[in-house]
Amino acid sequence: VCAGGQGPALSGLSLGELAERVGGRLIGDAQTHVVAVRSLDEAGPAHLSLIAHPREARRLRSTRAAAVLLDEGTAADQAHELPCAVIACEKPYRALRAALGLLHPSVGPSSGVDPQANVHPEAILGAEVFVGPLAVVGRALLGDRTQVHSLAFIDDDVELGSDCVVAPGCVLLRGTRLGHRVALNAGAIVGAEGFGYAPEGDANVKVPQVGGVHLDDDVELGANACVDRGALSDTRVGRGTKIDNLVQVGHGAQVGAHVVLVGQVGLAGGARIGDGAVFGGQSGCGPFLSVGEGARVGARAGVTRDVPKGAAVSGMPAYPHADWLKSSIRARDLDGLFRRLLAAEERICTLEARLVALDEEPHV
Amino acid sequence: VCAGGQGPALSGLSLGELAERVGGRLIGDAQTHVVAVRSLDEAGPAHLSLIAHPREARRLRSTRAAAVLLDEGTAADQAHELPCAVIACEKPYRALRAALGLLHPSVGPSSGVDPQANVHPEAILGAEVFVGPLAVVGRALLGDRTQVHSLAFIDDDVELGSDCVVAPGCVLLRGTRLGHRVALNAGAIVGAEGFGYAPEGDANVKVPQVGGVHLDDDVELGANACVDRGALSDTRVGRGTKIDNLVQVGHGAQVGAHVVLVGQVGLAGGARIGDGAVFGGQSGCGPFLSVGEGARVGARAGVTRDVPKGAAVSGMPAYPHADWLKSSIRARDLDGLFRRLLAAEERICTLEARLVALDEEPHV
Amino acid sequence: VCAGGQGPALSGLSLGELAERVGGRLIGDAQTHVVAVRSLDEAGPAHLSLIAHPREARRLRSTRAAAVLLDEGTAADQAHELPCAVIACEKPYRALRAALGLLHPSVGPSSGVDPQANVHPEAILGAEVFVGPLAVVGRALLGDRTQVHSLAFIDDDVELGSDCVVAPGCVLLRGTRLGHRVALNAGAIVGAEGFGYAPEGDANVKVPQVGGVHLDDDVELGANACVDRGALSDTRVGRGTKIDNLVQVGHGAQVGAHVVLVGQVGLAGGARIGDGAVFGGQSGCGPFLSVGEGARVGARAGVTRDVPKGAAVSGMPAYPHADWLKSSIRARDLDGLFRRLLAAEERICTLEARLVALDEEPHV
Repeated sequence: VCAGGQGPALSGLSLGELAERVGGRLIGDAQTHVVAVRSLDEAGPAHLSLIAHPREARRLRSTRAAAVLLDEGTAADQAHELPCAVIACEKPYRALRAALGLLHPSVGPSSGVDPQANVHPEAILGAEVFVGPLAVVGRALLGDRTQVHSLAFIDDDVELGSDCVVAPGCVLLRGTRLGHRVALNAGAIVGAEGFGYAPEGDANVKVPQVGGVHLDDDVELGANACVDRGALSDTRVGRGTKIDNLVQVGHGAQVGAHVVLVGQVGLAGGARIGDGAVFGGQSGCGPFLSVGEGARVGARAGVTRDVPKGAAVSGMPAYPHADWLKSSIRARDLDGLFRRLLAAEERICTLEARLVALDEEPHV
Repeated sequence: VCAGGQGPALSGLSLGELAERVGGRLIGDAQTHVVAVRSLDEAGPAHLSLIAHPREARRLRSTRAAAVLLDEGTAADQAHELPCAVIACEKPYRALRAALGLLHPSVGPSSGVDPQANVHPEAILGAEVFVGPLAVVGRALLGDRTQVHSLAFIDDDVELGSDCVVAPGCVLLRGTRLGHRVALNAGAIVGAEGFGYAPEGDANVKVPQVGGVHLDDDVELGANACVDRGALSDTRVGRGTKIDNLVQVGHGAQVGAHVVLVGQVGLAGGARIGDGAVFGGQSGCGPFLSVGEGARVGARAGVTRDVPKGAAVSGMPAYPHADWLKSSIRARDLDGLFRRLLAAEERICTLEARLVALDEEPHV
Repeated sequence: VCAGGQGPALSGLSLGELAERVGGRLIGDAQTHVVAVRSLDEAGPAHLSLIAHPREARRLRSTRAAAVLLDEGTAADQAHELPCAVIACEKPYRALRAALGLLHPSVGPSSGVDPQANVHPEAILGAEVFVGPLAVVGRALLGDRTQVHSLAFIDDDVELGSDCVVAPGCVLLRGTRLGHRVALNAGAIVGAEGFGYAPEGDANVKVPQVGGVHLDDDVELGANACVDRGALSDTRVGRGTKIDNLVQVGHGAQVGAHVVLVGQVGLAGGARIGDGAVFGGQSGCGPFLSVGEGARVGARAGVTRDVPKGAAVSGMPAYPHADWLKSSIRARDLDGLFRRLLAAEERICTLEARLVALDEEPHV
């Protein structure tokens, strides 16, 4: 998030050196130089590329890239047919990260507090902290090397661990605790009021929300995503969990470690999500429901009852994904199904009439 | 919203005093002291708790809380079996609010305009107004005790009543009018341009949006929620309506009083929502449709035609909730239904063949 | 977006002059004066109005407006029955834009850099640029007459064409390129990190995102909408495309020209959307899928496979809209369908039993 920019290295690297440094096996000319990584469609003769999604594999043969990163199997099958060099490796994405580190080195902001930042005199800042222009930092604690970018707001009584990145326009409200290496994309809001009301006659009266939010180490939060403060106890997001843009995490939700919440997911208050669970885009989970460890919730699914550990569910209301796949094929032609039923009913009527007639025929 | 923080009172209260002050009946030791309110899971021996959602009731017997607030019926049934004291009361949520007021007193910001705020010289500020550092206030009107927090933007030609709270990062654009006690959570946007275009050949040309937005008394708006300005007349949200995070209210929508829009709901332009209607999470309503007073729209439902007063609808397109419940059970096994239909068709074929054969048998 | 305000002209215009200047034919008194445009419901005797949506037509006969803009056909049918004057025209929305330009002239901010803006000394600003108070502009390029409003953030290495409008609270991150006349509503985020992770054991490790974002001429982006930077190459949005509030455009998506994405739509990374496609509210598209030119995706639909050029799809998973319409009628009473099938099965059993009995009857 706004980590300071990643421009291409000026001189580039030879494919020979690159293959060695990313731990791959080169099939092609070791002397060719590449200067950057680009997508299959956009790569040219000085670029490295790879298949970013299985649906992109069809574009492999028409790429103009100098070289592509491929897993060993695909390399064995296809390297001889491709218009480019191949760096075969066990894990192309791991190699990609290494290649990006070499060709697109990240340049962080220099540390220091901008003279136009607004930092409370009692704020406690670790070593090499960066606070950008027009950021506001209250009586908060910022760990070493943590970056608070321009126009971000850190309330009183907020703690950030070391190596956190708070992008421009984020708001972290009172009672928020971040672990280490937590990254918040622009516009993310942590610690806003939970949506808790009690009916009084026609009206809904606010129930004070006195919990905070705890985001554990390595959590990442997408642009304009929201994690509300807990009503009575903290809302918690476990270590390594990744949350995409415009996701809503309601008050008091307990999200485990290494969970993935894809764009526009909504978790209602009190939801409990087990470690390693994955929510597809635009899916949701109702209040105070439990989704077990490693469960997979399909895109646009709506969880309305507890989901067991390891289960895969889809649909609204969500039910086992395998059943949903079968049902959704039939759902495309419910009208046809209905018409076949009508036809069957008519045939039954005819048969019934025929049998009645048989009964009435004189037994010879 | 960012109301200044709510820490536990230092000394706490005895259960006897607490029960009396929240209007409940104590079953247990009046001398036990509690210092804060926590959820059933997290409460310890110095905490008060309660059932925050029916799905939490199962956690009652394992709580380590000192005491729980229960409604009279549950208290009568279960108090003798619980590992804690009970404060029985008619309305546990009303008692909770009272208890929170005692144990977690809210501390607002002191009033005054921060020297680093940017306030237009012609802005009119009521008594005890608070404007935080790096907030921008144009030629606007702010009622008594209204708070505009850091990095919020109040445009020219905006009016806020008294006791409003505008959290950090909110944007209120020209033509916005707030009643009294309106609370906007962080990142909420009021008065952005409506999505109004007229086709001109292949292109879509913007239709100027000249209406404003009016949010009546006691409206609350969630984090990163958006209420667009009207195209021709104001977008209106009635008294006491509560709008959750990441909700979209389109241009010219007319939302009644005491309406509830849960997280990520979307109302298209021109929608008319009657008083007391409730939209479940991630549901939506199409343009220029009417949803009647007290209607309930289920989570993830999509309203595509008018909904009568008091109706409950679900599904996409939305239809009566009771029918949806029955249909959604059958929808889980459409393939089974289809296979049964196939089997029935085969049996009919067999019957038909048998009857033909009967007809052809020589009548002895 | 925050374009400086559009108040009514003081004196107004006579209907005669107005009709002439908007290119319409007046049916009514040419001397009547109107001062503003209002919706049918809210217009009074000094207001012009029109049917803003077909569902509003029923409100035409009860309007108190002085005059309404109608297309020639509706005018011919209804003008004699209406309680107001009529300006008949070929394209009422084009006439509306003209009328708004006359009655609600837009007042932009004066140009110049506010002394409280934070502009990098190496930023390059075109003629008549506006930078509002507490906006932050890095080493960026701003075209002529471009406006960057208060509390917006323009990173280093960002380019804006001429006549762009960046509303308060927007964030444009490194590698963002805007064409001319691009308008970003408040809180929009361009260039945040894509959601790209590679699994490493239990954990998900961030894949650096080194692409940028390119928004072509006349693109408009809604409040709190997000367009992520590309993983390897730029995310692109074509000329004239209009994107509503709270929409998510994932990393590397390639969105064509004159596309319409209604509120809360989500496009996953790598999605390819053809020119002129339209996504209804709250719909979504999966990763690396293609949606053809001019395709129409219904509200709340979920695209899970490629959509051909010109097709209309609905449902989740999305399938042809016409089929969806038929299926969704039957879906309302799946339980009834199921019960009819049960009844048919019983009748078949009866028939089978009867035939068995027939077979066993002694042939006389």
